[in-house]
Formats: sequence, structure tokens, C-alpha cells
Amino acid sequence: MPEPAQLSLNTATVRAQWNLAQCVDGCVRHGIGGIAPWRDKLHEAGVSEGARMIADAGLAVSGLCRGGWYTAEGALTDAVLDDNKRAVDEAVAIGAACLVMVVGGLAEGSKDIAAARAMVEDGLGQTLEYARGAGMPIAIEPLHPMYAADRACVNTMRQALDLCDALDPDASGALGVACDVYHVWWDPELPDQINRAGASRLLAFHICDWLVPTRDLLLDRGMMGDGVIDIAGIRSQVEAAGFSGLNEVEIFSAETWWKRDADDVLTTMVERGRTAS
Amino acid sequence: MPEPAQLSLNTATVRAQWNLAQCVDGCVRHGIGGIAPWRDKLHEAGVSEGARMIADAGLAVSGLCRGGWYTAEGALTDAVLDDNKRAVDEAVAIGAACLVMVVGGLAEGSKDIAAARAMVEDGLGQTLEYARGAGMPIAIEPLHPMYAADRACVNTMRQALDLCDALDPDASGALGVACDVYHVWWDPELPDQINRAGASRLLAFHICDWLVPTRDLLLDRGMMGDGVIDIAGIRSQVEAAGFSGLNEVEIFSAETWWKRDADDVLTTMVERGRTAS
Repeated sequence: MPEPAQLSLNTATVRAQWNLAQCVDGCVRHGIGGIAPWRDKLHEAGVSEGARMIADAGLAVSGLCRGGWYTAEGALTDAVLDDNKRAVDEAVAIGAACLVMVVGGLAEGSKDIAAARAMVEDGLGQTLEYARGAGMPIAIEPLHPMYAADRACVNTMRQALDLCDALDPDASGALGVACDVYHVWWDPELPDQINRAGASRLLAFHICDWLVPTRDLLLDRGMMGDGVIDIAGIRSQVEAAGFSGLNEVEIFSAETWWKRDADDVLTTMVERGRTAS
Repeated sequence: MPEPAQLSLNTATVRAQWNLAQCVDGCVRHGIGGIAPWRDKLHEAGVSEGARMIADAGLAVSGLCRGGWYTAEGALTDAVLDDNKRAVDEAVAIGAACLVMVVGGLAEGSKDIAAARAMVEDGLGQTLEYARGAGMPIAIEPLHPMYAADRACVNTMRQALDLCDALDPDASGALGVACDVYHVWWDPELPDQINRAGASRLLAFHICDWLVPTRDLLLDRGMMGDGVIDIAGIRSQVEAAGFSGLNEVEIFSAETWWKRDADDVLTTMVERGRTAS
């Protein structure tokens, strides 16, 4: 039952309604403790100006969304790697708890998911090296398997943690996972993998709900309590494993929440934090 | 590159166009070696009459779709268990290679997926006992995680094989898995789990393709070659592991293949069997 101060607003939740300044003001108005900007909103505002706004409002930053997309050009080009370095720098600029990585799916025209995964591991390793120097933790977000082709070929907590073991065997805190209930709630191994991750690798916790029926693969996420995920149960597991960060609310919802008044969305989010998370 | 004789038509592929008799005739006309009826089509035709038609046409039966749905009434009622016994009997009547199990998702109003999974294991154990007596192999079909809530809470090959180990530790051949590329292609553990299954537990192999974008969670499967699955690669793996059955084509496609002339669908299926599988 997180209180509003324990929630973080991922700007995607009101992407259609508000710019970053409005999101910051909204968080303050609703007593929400943190924010997680998407880079497009941050770029619109300007990184320095965005950082200043967030700091002035006294908000924590649960993460920056997002780096990754290593397979976008079919190879680890300088453009791809440099963009990830910029994402690290931006995460540092806004004082983010971590940079969240959506790693990319199959390369254009490819059916070789093993090759995509190898490219992702290579790319993550290179970004990690840069991010260690910058002191910015990298959070690999396993995405639901329905996004394996076109968004992220890391699809389970086990797979993300295997990458962590390979790239950061000492569990230094430089590399971990973003656990989003939407992507992982179905996984029979979830409790075991949350325990495996532990405090050093649980870098972010994202909440929303899985609707039945789900009408769109990408843009039909539900508000907490409107679907079938045992959010409170999963939250208890990550907390028992040592996670003590904010509960970041990230809801892509073209037909419902993006059409509502954004203050209503935040009011509901605060209420459902208390009653359905 | 399966030849048509190595293909099987799952009746769902032309569900909107043809009844069972038309499916049987279509298979013969196109040189397709086998058929896999859904029970609704079989019941329409009458089980005995359907069995006779299939036998007269000389078609193999790669499976009967489907038993399972153990969570439908929130408990393992007699209705649920009896329906599964009838499914076993029908599979025997048509000489099916296996009875395919779609196990059911969350019980109505429940968020407890662990409870659903326990109910499924209990139900499968009871059906297995009956099916052993009838000599009918049971094939657990892990469904894509996007169906965990509303269709099947068995979502990976590992999970299905764990159930097999628990319920049939001797790998007697009475219990195994139906490996459908649509449901499992994304899984980083797929090659390992196919090897783990081996010949005794690989009871069925289903093919179709994953479209990008996928416009509907249920009814937008692609024809082989139109999507991103490395079907030939996965087929090689199951064959290397000892599977020697038919390649069953099961395509739910409300907006494309269900709107086409069914003979065109089968022509394309035969061609894509040769060129894209």
C-alpha cells in the first residue's frame, strides 16, 4: 500500500497530456515522491532546465527511460553507442537512480534472435563501462515476450540476471534489472528470480496492471487494480529481497488514461497506490 | 522444408471457411498428410462420422485440439474433469497422435496464478490417469505468456516439462508437450528445453509465424514466412531431438487467412511449407 510519497510518476503515464514541467508540477500537487522522465520529454524541456525543475521540486528520480535499442541499426554503430553514452550523461544530470534499458528486438529483416541477444550483450557491456565511470547504475528491463521481435529481446528476469552475472560478476551495483510487473507477472520463476536479484540488482520497480482482455499489444496497459496482476504480492517479494526504492507507475493507455484529464489520472494513481498495490 | 505429406492442417486455420468434411477433402486435394481437428468441428460432424471420414481419406491425425481449461469453474469440478475424459475418448476415436491441452488461465476474479497452476497440475494428473488407461498421450501446450491470464497459465517449455517430470517421472510417453513455434520462439531457453524434452516428450510440433506488428493478441497469427520466426531452425532442433511427427499448421487470422478462399490458404500453406519452414 504505497503512500504517494513512495510513488514515482513515469512521464509515459500522462504522455499525451503533459510536458515535463507539467508532470513535475503535478507530482508536487499530488504529493508524489518521484518522477521518471522519458528522454523525449526531457529533451523538449532541455536537460539542464529539466534537471533544475526536478531538483527545485524536491522530487526523487526513480529512473531515466531509456537507453538501449542496440539492434536498431543491425550493428553496434557509433551512433547507437554514442546515444547510450548521452543517455548515461542525461541520467547523471537529473540525478536518476538508474538508466533503464530497453535493449532492442530483432535487427531489421533478421530472424536470428540469438544474434540480436549477442549484440545486446556486447552493447550493454560497452555502455556499462562508460556508466561505471559516470557512477550511473544501468537497469536492464526484461520486456514481456510479446515484444521480443520489435522492442526487446531480453524477456525474462532470469535472462536479464544472466546478463548481469556475465557483465558484472561481482554484483557491484553498477548493473541490475528494472522489474516491471506488466512484463514479468506471468513468469513461474518470478519469485525465485527476484530473490536471486537481491538488493544489489533490483534497481527499479514499475507498476501498472494487465487488462483482460488486452486490446493492443503496446498501448493498453491498465491502472493498478483494473487487471489481474497481484501487484501487492510482487511488491512484497521485491521488498523482502531488499528493494527500497519508489514504485514507479508507467501506464501506456491510448484509449483510456491518455484521454483523461491528467490530474484525474494522478488522483487515481495515488488512490490505487493505496488500495491496489 | 516439409513436403505436403509432412504437413497437417489444424482446422483452426480455415475455421471460418470449412467444416470438417471440407477440411478432410481439402487435405486430400492438396496432398496434405494429416489433420488436427478442433473439437467443435468434430462435434458438428459427429465423432464417429468424423473418425470415419478421416480414416477413409487416409489422413494421419497429429492431434485433437483441445482438452484442458481446468480453471474454468474455479475448481476441478466433475464437469471439467468429465469433459477432459470425453476429450480423451474423442482423441482415441479419431486415432489422434495426442490430445493437446490448453490448460486454462486464472480462475474468474482471481489474481493468484500460483493457485491456477496448482489446479492445473492436479487436473492434468487426473486426466493423465484416465488417458493412460485409454492409451492416449497427453500433450501440454505451453501458451505464449500473453495468454497467461485468460487461456493458459503454462507458459514456457521449461514449465511444461517440469509438469511432465512431476506427473510422469519415467517419461513413459503418456505425457509430453506440444511445441508451437508461435508460443515459444522468443524463449532464450528454447533449444535447451527442446533437448530436455527429447523424443519421448515431443508429441506435437505446430507452425505459423509471428507478425510485426501483431494487431490482435489472439487472431493475428501469420502464415509461415510472413513473420520473424526462424521456423526451419526450430524444426531442425525438434527433429534433432527425435521428433518425427507432422508439422501442424495452426493459424488464427481473422483479418487475413480466414477471409481468403480456403483452397488458396492450403495452396499457400503447402508452398510455405516448402519455402519457409
